[in-house]
Amino acid sequence: MRPSGRAPDQMRSIAIEPAFTIHAEGSVLVSFGNTKVLVTASVDEKVPPFLRGKGAGWVTAEYGMLPRATHTRGSREAAKGKQSGRTQEIQRLIGRSLRAVVDMKKLGERQIIIDCDVIQADGGTRTASISGAWVALRLAVDKLLAAKTISEDPIVDKVGAISCGIYKGTPVLDLDYDEDSVAEADGNFVLTGKGQIVEVQASAEGATYDEEGLLRLLRLARIGCTEIFAAQDKATGR
Amino acid sequence: MRPSGRAPDQMRSIAIEPAFTIHAEGSVLVSFGNTKVLVTASVDEKVPPFLRGKGAGWVTAEYGMLPRATHTRGSREAAKGKQSGRTQEIQRLIGRSLRAVVDMKKLGERQIIIDCDVIQADGGTRTASISGAWVALRLAVDKLLAAKTISEDPIVDKVGAISCGIYKGTPVLDLDYDEDSVAEADGNFVLTGKGQIVEVQASAEGATYDEEGLLRLLRLARIGCTEIFAAQDKATGR
Amino acid sequence: MRPSGRAPDQMRSIAIEPAFTIHAEGSVLVSFGNTKVLVTASVDEKVPPFLRGKGAGWVTAEYGMLPRATHTRGSREAAKGKQSGRTQEIQRLIGRSLRAVVDMKKLGERQIIIDCDVIQADGGTRTASISGAWVALRLAVDKLLAAKTISEDPIVDKVGAISCGIYKGTPVLDLDYDEDSVAEADGNFVLTGKGQIVEVQASAEGATYDEEGLLRLLRLARIGCTEIFAAQDKATGR
Amino acid sequence: MRPSGRAPDQMRSIAIEPAFTIHAEGSVLVSFGNTKVLVTASVDEKVPPFLRGKGAGWVTAEYGMLPRATHTRGSREAAKGKQSGRTQEIQRLIGRSLRAVVDMKKLGERQIIIDCDVIQADGGTRTASISGAWVALRLAVDKLLAAKTISEDPIVDKVGAISCGIYKGTPVLDLDYDEDSVAEADGNFVLTGKGQIVEVQASAEGATYDEEGLLRLLRLARIGCTEIFAAQDKATGR
Amino acid sequence: MRPSGRAPDQMRSIAIEPAFTIHAEGSVLVSFGNTKVLVTASVDEKVPPFLRGKGAGWVTAEYGMLPRATHTRGSREAAKGKQSGRTQEIQRLIGRSLRAVVDMKKLGERQIIIDCDVIQADGGTRTASISGAWVALRLAVDKLLAAKTISEDPIVDKVGAISCGIYKGTPVLDLDYDEDSVAEADGNFVLTGKGQIVEVQASAEGATYDEEGLLRLLRLARIGCTEIFAAQDKATGR
Amino acid sequence: MRPSGRAPDQMRSIAIEPAFTIHAEGSVLVSFGNTKVLVTASVDEKVPPFLRGKGAGWVTAEYGMLPRATHTRGSREAAKGKQSGRTQEIQRLIGRSLRAVVDMKKLGERQIIIDCDVIQADGGTRTASISGAWVALRLAVDKLLAAKTISEDPIVDKVGAISCGIYKGTPVLDLDYDEDSVAEADGNFVLTGKGQIVEVQASAEGATYDEEGLLRLLRLARIGCTEIFAAQDKATGR
Repeated sequence: MRPSGRAPDQMRSIAIEPAFTIHAEGSVLVSFGNTKVLVTASVDEKVPPFLRGKGAGWVTAEYGMLPRATHTRGSREAAKGKQSGRTQEIQRLIGRSLRAVVDMKKLGERQIIIDCDVIQADGGTRTASISGAWVALRLAVDKLLAAKTISEDPIVDKVGAISCGIYKGTPVLDLDYDEDSVAEADGNFVLTGKGQIVEVQASAEGATYDEEGLLRLLRLARIGCTEIFAAQDKATGR
Repeated sequence: MRPSGRAPDQMRSIAIEPAFTIHAEGSVLVSFGNTKVLVTASVDEKVPPFLRGKGAGWVTAEYGMLPRATHTRGSREAAKGKQSGRTQEIQRLIGRSLRAVVDMKKLGERQIIIDCDVIQADGGTRTASISGAWVALRLAVDKLLAAKTISEDPIVDKVGAISCGIYKGTPVLDLDYDEDSVAEADGNFVLTGKGQIVEVQASAEGATYDEEGLLRLLRLARIGCTEIFAAQDKATGR
Repeated sequence: MRPSGRAPDQMRSIAIEPAFTIHAEGSVLVSFGNTKVLVTASVDEKVPPFLRGKGAGWVTAEYGMLPRATHTRGSREAAKGKQSGRTQEIQRLIGRSLRAVVDMKKLGERQIIIDCDVIQADGGTRTASISGAWVALRLAVDKLLAAKTISEDPIVDKVGAISCGIYKGTPVLDLDYDEDSVAEADGNFVLTGKGQIVEVQASAEGATYDEEGLLRLLRLARIGCTEIFAAQDKATGR
Repeated sequence: MRPSGRAPDQMRSIAIEPAFTIHAEGSVLVSFGNTKVLVTASVDEKVPPFLRGKGAGWVTAEYGMLPRATHTRGSREAAKGKQSGRTQEIQRLIGRSLRAVVDMKKLGERQIIIDCDVIQADGGTRTASISGAWVALRLAVDKLLAAKTISEDPIVDKVGAISCGIYKGTPVLDLDYDEDSVAEADGNFVLTGKGQIVEVQASAEGATYDEEGLLRLLRLARIGCTEIFAAQDKATGR
Repeated sequence: MRPSGRAPDQMRSIAIEPAFTIHAEGSVLVSFGNTKVLVTASVDEKVPPFLRGKGAGWVTAEYGMLPRATHTRGSREAAKGKQSGRTQEIQRLIGRSLRAVVDMKKLGERQIIIDCDVIQADGGTRTASISGAWVALRLAVDKLLAAKTISEDPIVDKVGAISCGIYKGTPVLDLDYDEDSVAEADGNFVLTGKGQIVEVQASAEGATYDEEGLLRLLRLARIGCTEIFAAQDKATGR
Repeated sequence: MRPSGRAPDQMRSIAIEPAFTIHAEGSVLVSFGNTKVLVTASVDEKVPPFLRGKGAGWVTAEYGMLPRATHTRGSREAAKGKQSGRTQEIQRLIGRSLRAVVDMKKLGERQIIIDCDVIQADGGTRTASISGAWVALRLAVDKLLAAKTISEDPIVDKVGAISCGIYKGTPVLDLDYDEDSVAEADGNFVLTGKGQIVEVQASAEGATYDEEGLLRLLRLARIGCTEIFAAQDKATGR
């Protein structure tokens, strides 16, 4: 029995609210239950140094957690003077996940910077970030297409992400904080709209798992991503 | 004529939405027009080292701006590894403003940490932060009183803040970004519910001003704070 | 009765000793009683990135306090690896105050960097810094004019600064440390030679104040600045 | 055809040389072909703050790459003043992998710190680090057991790690740098001696992959880990 | 012929002005010609962690250069966020030099912190710092003795320092900046009042030197230190 | 009697193993007894900013100590976010020592970066680093000569370094950790193949020393360097 009363393969309610803020080229507030992340996509007409003059673009991401997004207040990374290893790990994952579905040549020599800031945390902030970030990216690219800044759509597929884990011996979908903090195994799965795998990160916590366990988590992830892709379609009006 | 069409002494619409997030002891989303700040108040049962064992509490504040809260994306302070001088100046002002209306002995040996994170910026983020922070503080203190953790209310008055400035020769109330960026003078006024001055920070920008100018700004600030205090009352249900 | 025995509107003795060091284009040792600040003005033929190619100059300031300038030793900011919020707040104020009286077009595309280093502190270090910095700036600009590097004087007026506060209920001029540490209100006023206001920063400390209090502090500041302007004239030989 | 001429399921030659340095409680030089990592295990009789007084131990890891371990010199992290996101991601993975096979209660309230320093890099430094780190940990724990500092062996199983990826369409085992830099997918698998999964991290690079691809990589990883466990046995003399 | 017209074994004029600032337990302004360093000695009743509870004291030093102490402005270390290698090297030398003449048991479990801040630089700032620091230390210790905080004098000898170098083939004493910047060899010698060597640091710059060269520099250093010890006596009134 | 049983003028066994790693233009593992340092020389076709366009090259060095190179684990500088003063002092010494024997014009506008990483420490890491670094530099320059990137040999002499000290009253050569930690005086001597002095750094520790002591240490250093030069010849096959 899950603390929330959900069935093992039941997601929390998902919402992706587009145009949540006014300045960014793309912006959404993505909610997976009580987990809420504000994601913006900013178009920057410069690329990082290693790409200059190569005719290709880049997509990168930064992630942050507001100090009191969590049950007890965490210290502010800007005040401490550095980003934690966890933060860096997450923002690298978000960037890789989005780049897997973007044709950098078609994007042209410009960068899209994704900012994921967690307003409220209840487990699954990195997967909510990725799922919402794809919509923010889509909105920003749509503006570039509408303005004819670019002529061909560089986004080749959707991308969504969800966490699954083994909770009290049962594989469950979309862990919330109460489950996440005691799960025996915890995996993050990033899938494309066509069902291909972009990234799997599955860690044992306390107990190790076997191949069958990995596959069961992956199957749950497919269920979850189907729902995420529907929410993305709704947010982008497609 | 103001870009927004407002009268010189007309505020933007103000809203202070209480209980905006679930974990913090106090939290609000404060909006002054398009300026939106998420403020949380966190109770910490420890005080800073210089106050240990003295039987008195403390109120402090941290401030941050999400990278794309602004027209063009700013760099993330956590990634740069330090808070800007502007950020530090603002968070010091917020802390001082709140401490001016709190009786630290009655608060007891505990600290309340205010986090002001700007979701969307359109001028006046520091004054919106102070005005919202007072409500978040009020909500957190109400919980301490309800739980009988403290027995007497340590908050001795309300505090509100508003910016006023001289725009194209005319003193105007509650500058938005379009005005702020070209104003000849720009002042931030922090007032108590009883009308006392907590802090005045008024800077010439391009043109200096005289005593009469300062007084006209202060009078506008009184008009604005009256409206802010009403919004605070509404948010706290008093 | 003030600890120093001064009348409420009586300044400490002021001295601005020009050419205190040999390398800087402008340098002074400014003393307000026991507060002593070494100020240098350095001409840099480059401007900050945001001004490049615009034909306008810049004036900026840095501030520091020697570790044992104070009653008890403070930690060295260079060793701690960052400047405090207080330091940044002060150096931003010094820069703004000087820029208010400089015509950047006439200065041409070059920067003047003001360094204010407090040798000995007894209250009022930021206002002494501003008052001395103007002389260092004047001396450096005079060299540029003498060398015909610039043809028109970019300095449009004098600028001086003084602190005033409410000490045991009485508005007093030029607070020293003994007064500053217990004052109910504390304000820093930056005025031009023509009597215009450049900046007012007035904070309640323990007690709030009203409009009449603010005006009384401002009137004291005018008295103080008259004396400062005379000391500036003496230092520059005008 | 692999650049090295190896068969798809063929490892590079592995060596784990124990007691490589004299001071550490455990130390090895681990080589996977030209990838060479010096790993030490240091026993520290203190635990991190969050574990104090709980009677349980901790295992943590730090990772570094000597500046010229690579084809072209990278900058020294100590000189830059921060560890890269990649470094932090790797050291967190090493720590998690080892903790999965340690009974912290049996270790007692002490910490074992693993340092993995890459002397020479040719792909697979993180998996070589984990595989060697287990031996260094084993050696250090053996000393604690021999000295009767602890009475029961806290290590419950072996742990090994290997990278697999899809290179020119073919799943291959133990990627070297030439393969790693162009692989379509790249996975790191951490397995226990009993064949359980500790961690899977598999990322698409340029091309996404499907469930079958993931399973084929996992099967290769099992082949590789069998060889690693043999090398670990040889190094520890069991 | 030296640029200054001095004879090879001629020092610049030295002055050590005691009690230059009012707050520090010991303070001097030391001048070696145009090189001017403000040195303070601060008594701290705590020792560094590695000495706690051992009944012995400590003497340490910090060094800084005001940004415009030099011909062209250097960047402020506090603003850059770190001390340069040169700064750290110098402050370590100052600390070692002073500790060589202090009996730490007699000092008792307290620390004396020396701050050397260069007001104006013209070569030899580290040796002027050491020579002045000894006087500041002497003054601070005299206060501890006068207050009977300590009963026996922990200072066992004087210590002075001077630079010597080979300039255009000739060994010369007390290099100023014009000489220092082109000298073939440059040495810093720290000697005790009894003529013992505390530290020799002699570097070839452009040309190497031989044993005879080293000895000639050392002999010049003895001449210089005799003069320094006399200036120290004069400053302390002994 | 020395702890190691060595005669006062007896070195530990020295080995300089060339081509220890495969990527660097020059690389050695240098051992002085149990002190082992991995040194690489990397050719960088860019020079530091202050040398651009001047037609001259540069040689610089960085130094690091692996955390468990020592008896007890030290903290990792990359994790702490800064290099210690000791580290910076040592890497500056290594760079100066090598530059003393290189003709920068003949090297051409390129930089050689020396990395010295201590694998195992038992006293004398900085002198072993310098002695090994010369060989790594020689090997890298030989490649530049062989590739006809440069036409004339820029290395004008060998350079070696050794520590000597006064241990229980006796001057001894090549201090190991047991001696170093209790020596009354400790000197590092850097000499050229022709016997010239590049640098002397001799510090009293606990006891001061006299001119005769300095000369005796220097004479021991000459004995040691003779042996070092032979090891260098052997490593470079000359």
